[in-house]
Amino acid sequence: MPLTDIEIARAAKKRPIQEIGEKAGIGAADLLPYGHDKAKVSQRFIDSVKDRPNGKLILVTAINPTPAGEGKTTTTVGLGDGLNAIGKKAMICIREASLGPNFGMKGGAAGGGYAQIVPMEDMNLHFTGDFHAITSAHSLLAAMIDNHIYWGNELEIDIRRVVWRRVVDMNDRALRQITASLGGVANGFPREAGFDITVASEVMACLCLATDLADLQRRLGDMIVAYRRDRTPIYCRDIKADGAMTVLLKDAMQPNLVQTLENNPAFVHGGPFANIAHGCNSVIATTTALKLADFVVTEAGFGADLGAEKFMNIKCRKAGIAPDCVVLVATVRAMKMNGGVAKADLGAENVEAVKAGCANLGRHIGNVKSFGVPVVVAINHFTGDTEAEVQAVKDYVQTQGSEAIVSKHWADGSKGSEALARRVAEIAEAGTANFAPIYPDDMPLFQKIETIAKRIYHADEVLADKKIRDQLRAWEEQGYGALPICMAKTQYSFSTDPNLRGAPTGHSVPVREVRLSAGAGFVVVICGEIMTMPGLPRVPSAEKIGLNEAGEIEGLF
Amino acid sequence: MPLTDIEIARAAKKRPIQEIGEKAGIGAADLLPYGHDKAKVSQRFIDSVKDRPNGKLILVTAINPTPAGEGKTTTTVGLGDGLNAIGKKAMICIREASLGPNFGMKGGAAGGGYAQIVPMEDMNLHFTGDFHAITSAHSLLAAMIDNHIYWGNELEIDIRRVVWRRVVDMNDRALRQITASLGGVANGFPREAGFDITVASEVMACLCLATDLADLQRRLGDMIVAYRRDRTPIYCRDIKADGAMTVLLKDAMQPNLVQTLENNPAFVHGGPFANIAHGCNSVIATTTALKLADFVVTEAGFGADLGAEKFMNIKCRKAGIAPDCVVLVATVRAMKMNGGVAKADLGAENVEAVKAGCANLGRHIGNVKSFGVPVVVAINHFTGDTEAEVQAVKDYVQTQGSEAIVSKHWADGSKGSEALARRVAEIAEAGTANFAPIYPDDMPLFQKIETIAKRIYHADEVLADKKIRDQLRAWEEQGYGALPICMAKTQYSFSTDPNLRGAPTGHSVPVREVRLSAGAGFVVVICGEIMTMPGLPRVPSAEKIGLNEAGEIEGLF
Repeated sequence: MPLTDIEIARAAKKRPIQEIGEKAGIGAADLLPYGHDKAKVSQRFIDSVKDRPNGKLILVTAINPTPAGEGKTTTTVGLGDGLNAIGKKAMICIREASLGPNFGMKGGAAGGGYAQIVPMEDMNLHFTGDFHAITSAHSLLAAMIDNHIYWGNELEIDIRRVVWRRVVDMNDRALRQITASLGGVANGFPREAGFDITVASEVMACLCLATDLADLQRRLGDMIVAYRRDRTPIYCRDIKADGAMTVLLKDAMQPNLVQTLENNPAFVHGGPFANIAHGCNSVIATTTALKLADFVVTEAGFGADLGAEKFMNIKCRKAGIAPDCVVLVATVRAMKMNGGVAKADLGAENVEAVKAGCANLGRHIGNVKSFGVPVVVAINHFTGDTEAEVQAVKDYVQTQGSEAIVSKHWADGSKGSEALARRVAEIAEAGTANFAPIYPDDMPLFQKIETIAKRIYHADEVLADKKIRDQLRAWEEQGYGALPICMAKTQYSFSTDPNLRGAPTGHSVPVREVRLSAGAGFVVVICGEIMTMPGLPRVPSAEKIGLNEAGEIEGLF
Repeated sequence: MPLTDIEIARAAKKRPIQEIGEKAGIGAADLLPYGHDKAKVSQRFIDSVKDRPNGKLILVTAINPTPAGEGKTTTTVGLGDGLNAIGKKAMICIREASLGPNFGMKGGAAGGGYAQIVPMEDMNLHFTGDFHAITSAHSLLAAMIDNHIYWGNELEIDIRRVVWRRVVDMNDRALRQITASLGGVANGFPREAGFDITVASEVMACLCLATDLADLQRRLGDMIVAYRRDRTPIYCRDIKADGAMTVLLKDAMQPNLVQTLENNPAFVHGGPFANIAHGCNSVIATTTALKLADFVVTEAGFGADLGAEKFMNIKCRKAGIAPDCVVLVATVRAMKMNGGVAKADLGAENVEAVKAGCANLGRHIGNVKSFGVPVVVAINHFTGDTEAEVQAVKDYVQTQGSEAIVSKHWADGSKGSEALARRVAEIAEAGTANFAPIYPDDMPLFQKIETIAKRIYHADEVLADKKIRDQLRAWEEQGYGALPICMAKTQYSFSTDPNLRGAPTGHSVPVREVRLSAGAGFVVVICGEIMTMPGLPRVPSAEKIGLNEAGEIEGLF
């Protein structure tokens, strides 16, 4: 029996976090420890390295996710360890895990096998409290809005048009839609309200895009929380909550330093939703890592159509950074599923299905190249993959003018990912990338949506009724026209139909709703149903989670 | 201009927390650091000292609070420093502050002047995340209850009788009463619900009374969350949430070590409401401190009629500990207010008013003595107090067979509290205390309520209608008859009328409602209006809270 992820993580020979900091060039005085294996990096240190040159930036992205699993985080960790193993100074930047969902389905958002970040248990629970701080800041603003209404509503908030919902870091479908302020005069004016999960908060998106605390406060102040009857917006700044929220987020803003199983440094910081937000780790973590390492390996949520697109068009644009190489993760199993094989039949060799499924991969390769960035395919190796199946993927990728490299980091750690690391380093050091977002700031908003739909999703058209087009034009008139677009659609397909695998064409992209995230700084375009508050399954994993007699956590992984 | 509390706190010469741990006999390996000035104590260490003899336990309590302020926490800290200054090994145990209320009124729950615990800012914000963990654990159970109903309601929960409310650590009156699960089939069955502030959660009370994680899980499992149509209870254990909740509370269960301005060790841990719960710091912190120090100084919420009564009848009874001396804090200003002086006129000398107000103090002295514990009055000195006023209090206390000692810890730190410390040490070491709760476990519940009302409040009678008496009898039949009583009434008076100062007699105590906290292990008796979710004031302090250019927090204190 091979060891489980949690067994491997528990057996990790962790080094004191000060030693990991030293490896990254951060002195102990600039680390705020949280236990012996986690630390936050001081703002003083971050400021002190601002003028250093940047290392190379590697984005790890993937094909459209399938139930077979791709292992994007695992590959990110494995590649980081691989780069260190071949003598490069590399750091990893990934997102923090949301606590709530771990009590629905089994958790574990820190890689897998011998490519993991530790302490895995903490990272799936409270970690350094960042998400709790975001929940607090979000909740304070919510309370202050209703309090403002309660005490006379000087700002003339239309209680039907409060757009600031509440949040909790828990899968709690009962709170999706509520009536609040019931019970009489002492409790306020009854109105409809609701809760999202914390990672969906615009506060999270602001924190992940902010360059420092002053920028964070400005973004928080810019957030629109409600409208008047005449439809004019009311900002967080009008409620005077931005200062106190920044105080609550003071520590959450600092990147968290942890380590891989091979004792290499990793920043795990921020975790915005990958649908209604941009789905990347924090800008401050990535830009700081670029000052400390020769190579920074990071990832983005979902497949490349959503994650890489937003990484490039939103995060890189806003942060003034550019990827030097993109690693596109694929698995033989996922190719088979894209080729029509059911999950139960994935065990059997099926070269034809692999070939049939490669179209999805091919389109992602082309898409990434269209940003001017070289791409390498990483075949994240599963033990059941056959030689012939692997070769089929390699052959296909070659026809797309790229190359595929097998990586066995899951089974072998950095020994398994050295080949991938060497090739990625070569490409990034060659400096052939010529990155540019696929639309300019000054393109009209609707045209930006069309550009993404046509160039990335390969759709024929974008469908949006007059109300939506009018709304976009109104925002342009109000000065929001230069914002990038944040697409919220299914992650399972290039189209808006989750069942349409492969590389569909001839489809259209219907826009159901548009929302302005004025603080984060993007226009959210919602295509299809987007769930911002998940529910728990019939038998939540929480039922099996507990401490065993040794005081160890069971059932969480 | 004297320095403000925050200026004094910022100028503190803090020692690394490992050094403070060493002073208390806790090695660095048994401290889990949270930054450089906070740490949690390992369970391994707590277990290792279990067989040591106990130090002396000093309870600091007070007269009924007035708007003049008494300085109970300040005196607790000052006395702890004073005991250390006279060569005794002393530790302080106080409660953690709730985050939410700091954004309504100015915060600062860590003492004042030169008798403070630091880091004060962290302690008023996220601290070590304990309350966030409690909010998470509470929220998980709430989500699992509605999830159980959603997936078929096998336990036959009556959705009108779900007694487990939700919590948030924020003053948010809009959430006091809501309708949840609206929006159709996907969101569940609409029902009335509501939120309390986190400190009112029974999870908080359980954590503060639990002896270890196994005991905590048992208590959590015992909590009643709902009833069936036939009125039979449904427990947290039936929902299978107790294990996962314990995992979420794993770190929160460990006491937090911090330091006073004079670098003496303090545990700041737990913070249950002082009305619907028992209002003391955690049992695990107090019992551990008793193993480490010769003197442990702790406090209880509100005045002695509520705080000391519950400390003795609930906390001491459950934890098997006993106070060796009680310090009753009074101020000349509060005596004057009890004597009928308005807050605006407190500046002028008024010996007659001081004398008139002493009746309140006298009754508390008698009450505390009735538990078999010696009592010293600490006159917490304010700069405007005159000699004649102070002497009036001293003379009065002497007529009550006790003594009053002026303490100037606020202005002078341990130099100001040495006299008090010497006397307290003398009394405690003399071993004259002969503590016993004022009612036995096997007294019927209603008779326990009468005992408190008559012996502590000096009321003539307890008024309760048949429904309430029947409920108490039903609980006795179900096996809850041995539980102690947790009184929830106004803190401003011995009676249930907040305006009745002094030492009223001839009043009656009307019981409005009784609640069973089966996990915490007490019966809550509610007399009058009890607010479990505060609101924000017209101008919340949050509006003025922010970071200044130096990155320091302004407006929080």
